[in-house]
Amino acid sequence: MVLAVADMAGTVLFAVEGAMAALRGGLDLFGVLVLSFATALGGGVLRDLLIGAAPPTALRDWRYPAMAFAAGGATFAGHAIVGQIPVGQGPLGWMTTLDAAGLSLFAVAGTEKALNRHIPPFSAVLMGTITGVGGGTLRDLLLAQVPAILRVDVYATAALLGAAVMTAAIRLGVAPRYAALMGGGACFVLRMVSVWRHWALPTAAGLAG
Amino acid sequence: MVLAVADMAGTVLFAVEGAMAALRGGLDLFGVLVLSFATALGGGVLRDLLIGAAPPTALRDWRYPAMAFAAGGATFAGHAIVGQIPVGQGPLGWMTTLDAAGLSLFAVAGTEKALNRHIPPFSAVLMGTITGVGGGTLRDLLLAQVPAILRVDVYATAALLGAAVMTAAIRLGVAPRYAALMGGGACFVLRMVSVWRHWALPTAAGLAG
Amino acid sequence: MVLAVADMAGTVLFAVEGAMAALRGGLDLFGVLVLSFATALGGGVLRDLLIGAAPPTALRDWRYPAMAFAAGGATFAGHAIVGQIPVGQGPLGWMTTLDAAGLSLFAVAGTEKALNRHIPPFSAVLMGTITGVGGGTLRDLLLAQVPAILRVDVYATAALLGAAVMTAAIRLGVAPRYAALMGGGACFVLRMVSVWRHWALPTAAGLAG
Repeated sequence: MVLAVADMAGTVLFAVEGAMAALRGGLDLFGVLVLSFATALGGGVLRDLLIGAAPPTALRDWRYPAMAFAAGGATFAGHAIVGQIPVGQGPLGWMTTLDAAGLSLFAVAGTEKALNRHIPPFSAVLMGTITGVGGGTLRDLLLAQVPAILRVDVYATAALLGAAVMTAAIRLGVAPRYAALMGGGACFVLRMVSVWRHWALPTAAGLAG
Repeated sequence: MVLAVADMAGTVLFAVEGAMAALRGGLDLFGVLVLSFATALGGGVLRDLLIGAAPPTALRDWRYPAMAFAAGGATFAGHAIVGQIPVGQGPLGWMTTLDAAGLSLFAVAGTEKALNRHIPPFSAVLMGTITGVGGGTLRDLLLAQVPAILRVDVYATAALLGAAVMTAAIRLGVAPRYAALMGGGACFVLRMVSVWRHWALPTAAGLAG
Repeated sequence: MVLAVADMAGTVLFAVEGAMAALRGGLDLFGVLVLSFATALGGGVLRDLLIGAAPPTALRDWRYPAMAFAAGGATFAGHAIVGQIPVGQGPLGWMTTLDAAGLSLFAVAGTEKALNRHIPPFSAVLMGTITGVGGGTLRDLLLAQVPAILRVDVYATAALLGAAVMTAAIRLGVAPRYAALMGGGACFVLRMVSVWRHWALPTAAGLAG
């Protein structure tokens, strides 16, 4: 029950973020809805295609696309009415916090699904990471931009850590629900601390300088 | 028989459009052929991957890629010889009309295939839309451009309407062939009228202004 | 044994090339690793999805992603330390030669896998080509660039020739190992000669001029 609510919350939040990126890019209503769908569900769709679980969950269960489209449509309408969407200010605003929670949840859920399908551990970690960040990557590609996760920030790395912690815990015999808590917690904490402390991954130019 | 001819005509036309976009982008012969293939068959390939029908029809039946490559090659040769391809002038030129017909056909065919594979109705509508507009989206992405369907025009919306009308008709017990006619007709009419009347989907900026 | 070594060598080389493209694009460490993976394994992943062989080999066997990440990480570290990676100078330097060898190997391996899965010959040739050039295409898309293979050079054409030669030889009854040698040889020779002689595919503008 808690998981289901969290999953819905993550889907809605990612859809809102996709819609806002589409609005910034000047897309029309259809474009806003597509980017809501892609951002919220693209990571899971990509994971399901890769692990051989087509059709993906997002197509089997109409509630997921319905939530994504509703969230995107509401964002579009809200933006048209008030001119902008209020966002949490500052590095630890509520938007950042919710996004980190969504990322943690998606990374853990993706890892669990891959492990359940007998994907090897190393690849399951990749699948968890892709579930977390694939939607945002697809959103950036549809806007003809280099995906943000490849350039800046400790974001994908947090998803990777969460997926790795969960996989390791399960391999060590921890019950899945506790392994998921550990993985999700690790992802959430690393993401929030890195925003707070302005951490970024090294670039070669930075190291060489 | 009529359907098979229409399917071939749609494939050839979309391939020509992909080749012309590639020529405008300055691509070489290989690039022209790739964009012909992607534009003509990308929507169907994407649909087949998503509904779990790999390998996609475009790879099972050599006639589809052969038609796409032949159409792309002929466009390339024609462009090299006469310097440009004659296109229908004006908003209701033959190119627009044929394109609307191809879009309608692809949307209806994609919806039917998804329903036949027991994809839920809501997702079947999405699959019909993707079949219609997925090829053009892939073409734009390969040219590093924001897909046109996300920015302007009543194009994807027409495919969506057609897929929705067809799905609703089948759910209401209409025979598939009549449901397909209704869906295809709705898509075609909306597309043609929107070109004629210069309809566009709202953007948030437009609404706010 | 020879094939396994060649396969590893191709994976490592393509990963290094992906890492270098990422470094030129100013990506961070995570971006470098993603582009290493995408360039080295993206073509095979795409082929496996298209022929219905999900999960792809790159996820079933952890050694492939491990090699790609190790090669990408080493390139990142080397670049940070010495400021640049030494590359073979001149049109026929060792980098070009190794790349042509990797391309030949990937094209032949992809063709063989598609034929083994009973993909029709025409499509098997496409799958061999995609195995060879899909990774580089994905790398360019992630950098928001028009894929290089669509614009310039006899590169994808060499992969296409190799795949076609191999497919034709097998259809004519040649034993797979010899068919692979013929296909790989044709790809390698065409690629090397085209670099040496500065061959490029025609563009329509070039022909018209």
